[in-house]
Amino acid sequence: MKTIGANYTGDGRCIFTVWAPEKKSMTLLLLDPSEREILMDRGKWGYFSVELTDIKPGTRYYFKPDGGKPYPDPASHFQPEGIHGPSAVVDQGAHTWQDQSWRGLSFQDLILYELHVGTFTPEGTFEAIIPRLDDLAATGINALELMPIAQFPGVRNWGYDGVYLYSVQDSYGGPAGLKKLVDACHARGMAVFLDVVYNHLGPEGNYFDQFGPYFTEKYCTPWGNAINFDEEWADGVRDYISNNPLHWFEHYHIDGLRFDAIHEVFDMGAVSIWELIHTTVKVLERRLGRSLHLVAESDLNSPKVIKTPEAGGLGFDAQWLDDFHHALYVLLDKAGRDRYADFGRMEQLAKALTDGFVMSGEYTTFRKRKFGASSAGIPGDRFVAFNLNHDQVGNRVSGERLCHLIDFERQKLAAAVLLLSPYVPMLFMGEEYADESPFFYFVDHSDADLIHAVKEGRKQEFAAFSSDTEPQDPFEIETFTKSRIQWEKRTEGKHRIILEWHRKLIELRRTEAVLKNVAKNDIRVTVLGQAGLVVHRQSVGGYDYLIGLYNFSDEEVSYELPGWVLGWTKLLDSKEPQWMENGDDSSTLLPAQAKPGQVVTLPPCSVTVYAGQVQLPVDAPV
Amino acid sequence: MKTIGANYTGDGRCIFTVWAPEKKSMTLLLLDPSEREILMDRGKWGYFSVELTDIKPGTRYYFKPDGGKPYPDPASHFQPEGIHGPSAVVDQGAHTWQDQSWRGLSFQDLILYELHVGTFTPEGTFEAIIPRLDDLAATGINALELMPIAQFPGVRNWGYDGVYLYSVQDSYGGPAGLKKLVDACHARGMAVFLDVVYNHLGPEGNYFDQFGPYFTEKYCTPWGNAINFDEEWADGVRDYISNNPLHWFEHYHIDGLRFDAIHEVFDMGAVSIWELIHTTVKVLERRLGRSLHLVAESDLNSPKVIKTPEAGGLGFDAQWLDDFHHALYVLLDKAGRDRYADFGRMEQLAKALTDGFVMSGEYTTFRKRKFGASSAGIPGDRFVAFNLNHDQVGNRVSGERLCHLIDFERQKLAAAVLLLSPYVPMLFMGEEYADESPFFYFVDHSDADLIHAVKEGRKQEFAAFSSDTEPQDPFEIETFTKSRIQWEKRTEGKHRIILEWHRKLIELRRTEAVLKNVAKNDIRVTVLGQAGLVVHRQSVGGYDYLIGLYNFSDEEVSYELPGWVLGWTKLLDSKEPQWMENGDDSSTLLPAQAKPGQVVTLPPCSVTVYAGQVQLPVDAPV
Repeated sequence: MKTIGANYTGDGRCIFTVWAPEKKSMTLLLLDPSEREILMDRGKWGYFSVELTDIKPGTRYYFKPDGGKPYPDPASHFQPEGIHGPSAVVDQGAHTWQDQSWRGLSFQDLILYELHVGTFTPEGTFEAIIPRLDDLAATGINALELMPIAQFPGVRNWGYDGVYLYSVQDSYGGPAGLKKLVDACHARGMAVFLDVVYNHLGPEGNYFDQFGPYFTEKYCTPWGNAINFDEEWADGVRDYISNNPLHWFEHYHIDGLRFDAIHEVFDMGAVSIWELIHTTVKVLERRLGRSLHLVAESDLNSPKVIKTPEAGGLGFDAQWLDDFHHALYVLLDKAGRDRYADFGRMEQLAKALTDGFVMSGEYTTFRKRKFGASSAGIPGDRFVAFNLNHDQVGNRVSGERLCHLIDFERQKLAAAVLLLSPYVPMLFMGEEYADESPFFYFVDHSDADLIHAVKEGRKQEFAAFSSDTEPQDPFEIETFTKSRIQWEKRTEGKHRIILEWHRKLIELRRTEAVLKNVAKNDIRVTVLGQAGLVVHRQSVGGYDYLIGLYNFSDEEVSYELPGWVLGWTKLLDSKEPQWMENGDDSSTLLPAQAKPGQVVTLPPCSVTVYAGQVQLPVDAPV
Repeated sequence: MKTIGANYTGDGRCIFTVWAPEKKSMTLLLLDPSEREILMDRGKWGYFSVELTDIKPGTRYYFKPDGGKPYPDPASHFQPEGIHGPSAVVDQGAHTWQDQSWRGLSFQDLILYELHVGTFTPEGTFEAIIPRLDDLAATGINALELMPIAQFPGVRNWGYDGVYLYSVQDSYGGPAGLKKLVDACHARGMAVFLDVVYNHLGPEGNYFDQFGPYFTEKYCTPWGNAINFDEEWADGVRDYISNNPLHWFEHYHIDGLRFDAIHEVFDMGAVSIWELIHTTVKVLERRLGRSLHLVAESDLNSPKVIKTPEAGGLGFDAQWLDDFHHALYVLLDKAGRDRYADFGRMEQLAKALTDGFVMSGEYTTFRKRKFGASSAGIPGDRFVAFNLNHDQVGNRVSGERLCHLIDFERQKLAAAVLLLSPYVPMLFMGEEYADESPFFYFVDHSDADLIHAVKEGRKQEFAAFSSDTEPQDPFEIETFTKSRIQWEKRTEGKHRIILEWHRKLIELRRTEAVLKNVAKNDIRVTVLGQAGLVVHRQSVGGYDYLIGLYNFSDEEVSYELPGWVLGWTKLLDSKEPQWMENGDDSSTLLPAQAKPGQVVTLPPCSVTVYAGQVQLPVDAPV
């Protein structure tokens, strides 16, 4: 690992290193305490470096390639004056960590919670999150997933316009703030994931071309030039990217990374950037002695993504399972077919639950081609499932959350299918209490051309959905402030019920051994026409049996409970009074105990969970 | 498999099928016996088709997308009037095959022979090759590999500008000529390989855009737009390409395909076009009951290329091993470092022999990046090795072959290292007798802009090598005629000696069991400084031992023969009188028999092969 950036090692010692393989010289311009210039040494492989012994943490600096204009450090750890300003030296040893006993969590045990630092609290900082952690933990959430926090233009951005991949957004609280948050999470048994973007770099404040060939024109991404992973001089770029996970894991004690849109990373090399990352992280994981998780956002539906390099895969531990969202959502909201034209059949949700990818080679009208390959047989903890995420909300013209689109009963259904699924579930901030703030797309660029381009792009994107609604102006500050969640509502009325419902489901997931079969080779689904489905789980080598009965329809549905158990005990019933928004109708309640083979009537829009034990054969040892 | 093109099934019946997913209508325009137009039926998946019952083989036709201009059939089997002319119906059942008992050859047994149909004989046709087959077979060659034969512009082309991938070049003799050649080869126990190009289509006569989205701008190749394997509408393109191998195997009894430049084929889909081809071909192989070989030209140095899809690979049976060429050639011609700056050490040839890829992750100055991954442990029959091929000759400004670049003794050395290597060897036409014709780059375009572009491109390509020689004009007919080999020279003087030397080496390869260990886990190489090397082979589970002693230097080199054999018997000595161009010097001959541990003196530029049997332990059963 080549340590790039400003590496402060204590006692005023700091090594500055920057990669610029085609430059003849590199000048370090220090701004504090007064301006001075130092010519750096040209080392091997295109790296310039210089070690100084009189540097104070916080010192601001620029690099001047070939003695020209000053630019921020591509590997800057901190940009205290924003994306265009100088970089600052960070003493990564300054924080006194309290998490010595933290060993991370097993991926299968996670309840992920995606949040946007800027809108999760009124303050929009890392530190402001801390007071809410106990409430999140009480609900059962044990892993935060922060939307990208690398320095982006201005103060309002989802984070995907981040440029300095080693830096921590100044307006969020910078490096010190992030460390406080991580320490506070670990103290509560919560893991922290970061969303990192390696498919492109933000357009504004991107001076990387001044240093080296970070980009290639061989491939195109929707966001501009692709990053150069396999052309001339790619090694320095590969160092820059493949060391980035180590930076977060080592300096910030991060537990896992979510890699944005890996399908827009192009690398034909014999060792892909993902294999390189897998290999370096697995080495670090053994050294640190705690779990480090690598999760891909992939729009490929390719099982190779989550296979090891030895098995010909990319080496991710898990990937987001978009198909689960599409299959479930369109069953709950018929209007959803506008966006997800290829979904809408109950069998697709069944396939999502048993196999993973719904599109496993089928033709899709959305893509106008066949798509995907089968993921049958892949364990459940290799997939992250969700009913909501920043994209599903923010890429709607009015930023609608699921609770804006479907009624109360269906919200309960959606949560149950997700949280009792064989996949690692992820909630989007506020989802656990049906927060009703929209989540808009917002940016804070200062480049006029860019502002125009973003506005036009958004209009075109929404034009496809023939909506009359004018998209919210991404540059307006209200677009940002309106996107803040309303945390105070979580204890009120229907919000409180939804919150309790989530807590109950997570508790079931934690306590019922049957739901913990990661291999998920036990799962079977009975499709009840287009009305609903029954999910069967059986414990590994054991006698426990659990069924989840889901009625998505507005009609009652009869179902004969399986006969191969000794008897059924109801664990959950969405029609019980405590889960009802407007009073209750106990006449629709299913029996607390039921006989094998008993026919039950599932009320409209309901979920019921029964547990039983498999009947012993007559001559089995008792 | 969707049968595209004109599928003549006998008795005047012919089904015409063409893919044009975004066209509203398609008209078949028949030219014979008189012009008539037939509106085709729009079927599923964007295919138009019509079945007629009054078609004669040879009937010429065009398609008119949306009733507009007429264009040739993208899946034309024959373009009797060239690339811009009408397509013609071919009766693929017309040829009476004589090769019923042909079951193909095992890949490890092949001696490949790459030839360019246009310059292999004065006639430049398939049929003109046939009279030369017996001579080739007598030398030991048992597989022809034809440079691309799909219809290209004009009559002079290497073939990489081919457009109609299902057609057979008219000037070579069309479908009937190719079948005669294949049948004649099979009758002599020779296999036939075709070079196919799926990374781009030639620029001239390329009307594919009139039919469908065959190309994508998402990726760039050095030859223009990449073929659309993973974007909207890709399925029809994938059908077009993935059925092409079946066309050659079924209709033309072809035994193997060499896929041009697979590193310029971009496909992020869950099932890559190569996996699709692998799968369909393996099914066909079982059905036909004969060996079908898939060989890649790959500039990736990635072992994935030759792994099965089940193991995460692309599914090729073998790939070209360029590193072997580079490592050996630069040791024989110091000037070779101009072109292959990263080669020139004896250890690299040793690695090429034991592992395969020489560049297995090392930084290369040529690429300005680290390149490749290790192929150690991969069996020898997964690689094709060569000292010469169309590119190595034709991409030199004067079209020099190896025999123009190195002296007679070194030519013998080169042939021995190749033909006694653990890899499947390939010769380039005329190489077996050191043919001295150049092999130039030649084309025959009719498009003026294209002519200009090609000329400029060639100049720029050679500019990198700071040569004073003006490149041959690719459009001059003499450039083509000068590239014809001089077959008649093979029985004369030094040419006859080189020919016999090849015959002898191939015979050794065939008869010495030790050389047949495909797993090549037995191979060891002793590097003799930068002077030469000794290749050790030991038979699998047996007692046979063979060493090849190679002295590349102009000095004598001493070597102590291994002591763990009972005794050594010389099998080959390049200094024996029969192999010498200008008389002989028997004083340099190595002993016909040698003792274990005997020190021998290798003459300058020599190769000697000894065989022995491993000594039994004292108490071993005899």
